[in-house]
Amino acid sequence: MGKNLTKRDEDYSKWYNELVVKADLAENSGVRGCMVIKPYGYAIWEKMQAGLDKMFKETGHENAYFPLFIPKSYLSKEASHVEGFAKECAVVTHYRLKNSDDGSEIIVDEDAKLEEELIVRPTSETIIWDTYRRWVQSYRDLPLLINQWANVVRWEMRTRLFLRTAEFLWQEGHTAHATEKEAIEEAEQMMHVYATFAEEHMAVPVIKGLKTESERFAGAIETYCIEALMQDGKALQAGTSHFLGQNFAKAFDVKFANKEGQKDFVWATSWGVSTRLMGALVMTHSDDNGLVLPPKLAPIQVVIVPIYKGLEQLDIISEKIKPLVKELRSKGISVKFDNRDTHKPGFKFNEYELKGVPIRLAVGQRDLENGTYEIARRDTLKKEIVAAGDVIEKIEYLMEDIQKNIYQKAFDYRKEHITEVDSYESFKKVLEEKGGFISAYWDGTTETEDRIKKETKATIRCVPIDVEKKEGKCMVTGKNAPYRVLFAKAY
Amino acid sequence: MGKNLTKRDEDYSKWYNELVVKADLAENSGVRGCMVIKPYGYAIWEKMQAGLDKMFKETGHENAYFPLFIPKSYLSKEASHVEGFAKECAVVTHYRLKNSDDGSEIIVDEDAKLEEELIVRPTSETIIWDTYRRWVQSYRDLPLLINQWANVVRWEMRTRLFLRTAEFLWQEGHTAHATEKEAIEEAEQMMHVYATFAEEHMAVPVIKGLKTESERFAGAIETYCIEALMQDGKALQAGTSHFLGQNFAKAFDVKFANKEGQKDFVWATSWGVSTRLMGALVMTHSDDNGLVLPPKLAPIQVVIVPIYKGLEQLDIISEKIKPLVKELRSKGISVKFDNRDTHKPGFKFNEYELKGVPIRLAVGQRDLENGTYEIARRDTLKKEIVAAGDVIEKIEYLMEDIQKNIYQKAFDYRKEHITEVDSYESFKKVLEEKGGFISAYWDGTTETEDRIKKETKATIRCVPIDVEKKEGKCMVTGKNAPYRVLFAKAY
Repeated sequence: MGKNLTKRDEDYSKWYNELVVKADLAENSGVRGCMVIKPYGYAIWEKMQAGLDKMFKETGHENAYFPLFIPKSYLSKEASHVEGFAKECAVVTHYRLKNSDDGSEIIVDEDAKLEEELIVRPTSETIIWDTYRRWVQSYRDLPLLINQWANVVRWEMRTRLFLRTAEFLWQEGHTAHATEKEAIEEAEQMMHVYATFAEEHMAVPVIKGLKTESERFAGAIETYCIEALMQDGKALQAGTSHFLGQNFAKAFDVKFANKEGQKDFVWATSWGVSTRLMGALVMTHSDDNGLVLPPKLAPIQVVIVPIYKGLEQLDIISEKIKPLVKELRSKGISVKFDNRDTHKPGFKFNEYELKGVPIRLAVGQRDLENGTYEIARRDTLKKEIVAAGDVIEKIEYLMEDIQKNIYQKAFDYRKEHITEVDSYESFKKVLEEKGGFISAYWDGTTETEDRIKKETKATIRCVPIDVEKKEGKCMVTGKNAPYRVLFAKAY
Repeated sequence: MGKNLTKRDEDYSKWYNELVVKADLAENSGVRGCMVIKPYGYAIWEKMQAGLDKMFKETGHENAYFPLFIPKSYLSKEASHVEGFAKECAVVTHYRLKNSDDGSEIIVDEDAKLEEELIVRPTSETIIWDTYRRWVQSYRDLPLLINQWANVVRWEMRTRLFLRTAEFLWQEGHTAHATEKEAIEEAEQMMHVYATFAEEHMAVPVIKGLKTESERFAGAIETYCIEALMQDGKALQAGTSHFLGQNFAKAFDVKFANKEGQKDFVWATSWGVSTRLMGALVMTHSDDNGLVLPPKLAPIQVVIVPIYKGLEQLDIISEKIKPLVKELRSKGISVKFDNRDTHKPGFKFNEYELKGVPIRLAVGQRDLENGTYEIARRDTLKKEIVAAGDVIEKIEYLMEDIQKNIYQKAFDYRKEHITEVDSYESFKKVLEEKGGFISAYWDGTTETEDRIKKETKATIRCVPIDVEKKEGKCMVTGKNAPYRVLFAKAY
């Protein structure tokens, strides 16, 4: 199998689109803007879910499930929220189809028109806060720490697999607290949880920070985010966590009685990551040969390819590697022995490279005689011969080393691509020629932010949480600025 | 806390509705027919998902994800399928809202009307088979063994929590095979998987069988099912597995080349269970004191309630039970130590009874002095005093014994409620006075089946797969009948 994969430096965007399809992660469906997540891609998403879900539960959250549909009137209750979400949503207006009078087709039954239209959830704050009103009476009912794994729909005009689709899968946490302080701590905690997951599971280094007012979630007081950097120098927002103040509690009248019996509105957060993480994963590590997956998220961690002539040799190899497969599995390592007789070893090598399997073992007649395996690592494509007695240890070493190595590689790339600039001229030059994050002074006004965006397509990705509070002059207006912020072109 | 739970023999239906809400499993939402699954209920569903998912993977299936929306024209492609599903579905007609001209509200933007309406999936055969056309070319691509965990919507007019809701959660398996035989074997296998899950995890005995033509899935050649019996003598269909023949392959033109290079249509199955299983679980085991949960699915398997005066005693008890909690957790047993100082022990006892926690330990000052625990089992409500040194062993014993005992209880109930009758008169009498399954001869015609349904509200639940092929006379028409079938009133 030739991979026929466009090279990254020829056309990064095309490379990504092709890779997602060829590596069997996802494909477009017959429904505009909606994707099919294929089994191999879904297996990675399941591992992401499992990792995140464990971290949510360890921080005290429980899962629940809320309705897919939101009555139109709910959306309007929080003023800035409706502005953000009403524009791109799927609207259910009828609840029945019927045969047309001439029997030639099925049509919408106009007698089955809903009194109030239902919106397919673009996010669930409104339906959830409508529910929390019934769940919260007293301080004893707080905090409410709830997460939901769900599908959501935002009617995007231009879609790309995983990065921007009309329907996507995500989790959305929605918490309710007695105090402002506790809610802010929760929002910050979840940003840290996301960052830990991105760095330790996905091997994707991220910058933690705060969004500017114009980039905030519709209805939030503060939006915390993690920002990753792709290999083409564009940033990707990988997760957000919002401190919502009392906005939704006021909109849905959710009050609690404190210990003194006084009533007050509840404080809220919401936070989410989505199948967009799949896009970040692909674009951070993969190369011109295909996917490069971190061992922690790889559905197949080790593939064993037999090199043989005739089924008799295959049988001997199969017999030989059985104890190895068994021992690896007992260690929780997922192993595939590819004994398909319909494909040649070279085809298989290509296929597993394309699919990003971290470790590949090849075993042939000579290896059997010598008591060796050929072991190849996907990240560096290096091969070596290992004695059979050392192979388990070698695999365990590689599982950790590949995870570390691809993180470090991405970290080094990002480090090289954070550039400090002090003039708008050099800002534009760096943006054009080098890309990446640009650290610059900004006067804090939406007006300047909009101007920069309009003129350069760069947006403020965040004010990093570890920002040095050192005053300077805005690169555009020369006005005072309290600290540097990070700009980038972004997905 | 008084439970204020209606008793089963007063009003079984009301008992169920109250219990689901009071035990924090689910509640109605502000959206007609859609439920909120609360954290405690969702935790049970997660355990069901985990158990089923493992069994699906062990039988070679992979998970994937397909779009929520189905273009209207897809539904029409399989003639009997559209008849079954077009009548009760949510129809998306627009993709944008906007502010009304006077700014007073948000309204549907008529400029954003979809060219073709989208149906929120009531089941996914059509969108999946439209995808399989791209995935299947050769016999090498078969079998395709795919499952999806998803939400679906069927616009039910009368809804009940878990049993019948407009939106529900489920899994749907969709497989494609090269031969009819293999597809039938798959459909049968999944019926057995469902039965094993119901009996071993849920402790719900089920009857495996075949649906009659009129009860079959819309588009199926054969529908296999598992049928459970609730405590009010009504049956509940707990899972179905369909052999779809080549119907969907023909409708969506899915052909494969066999080893000889000849093209043929692919053979199909689909199979699903849903959050309806939650209803079956509740109605099979629970009693007038609340839920009774099988240990395998209980979110909290053991609760420890301290009996104390003053926080100092509570501290002593907390310290004392720490090693016990730790050891139980190391054995994979989920334990809750309820040290809330805001509620009395009696309140807590009631609450955990209501929530069906299988095992309750109470520990007070006297127990500390004597080195004992009071241990209570939820199924029989029996209490005994156990020496601290024996408590782990006792808990492990109870975990198994409760699981077995509630299964046996349900099995015995069902056994007593399968009644053979030979006349329509006694059929009606048994149905009215005793309920349960009624085993009777039926002449095999839809006409007779419809008449019985109309006159008695009983339906044919299934032809049991282990049915004795012994001829008899139809109880209604006196015509020849090849074997007995099972009737019941059903949910």
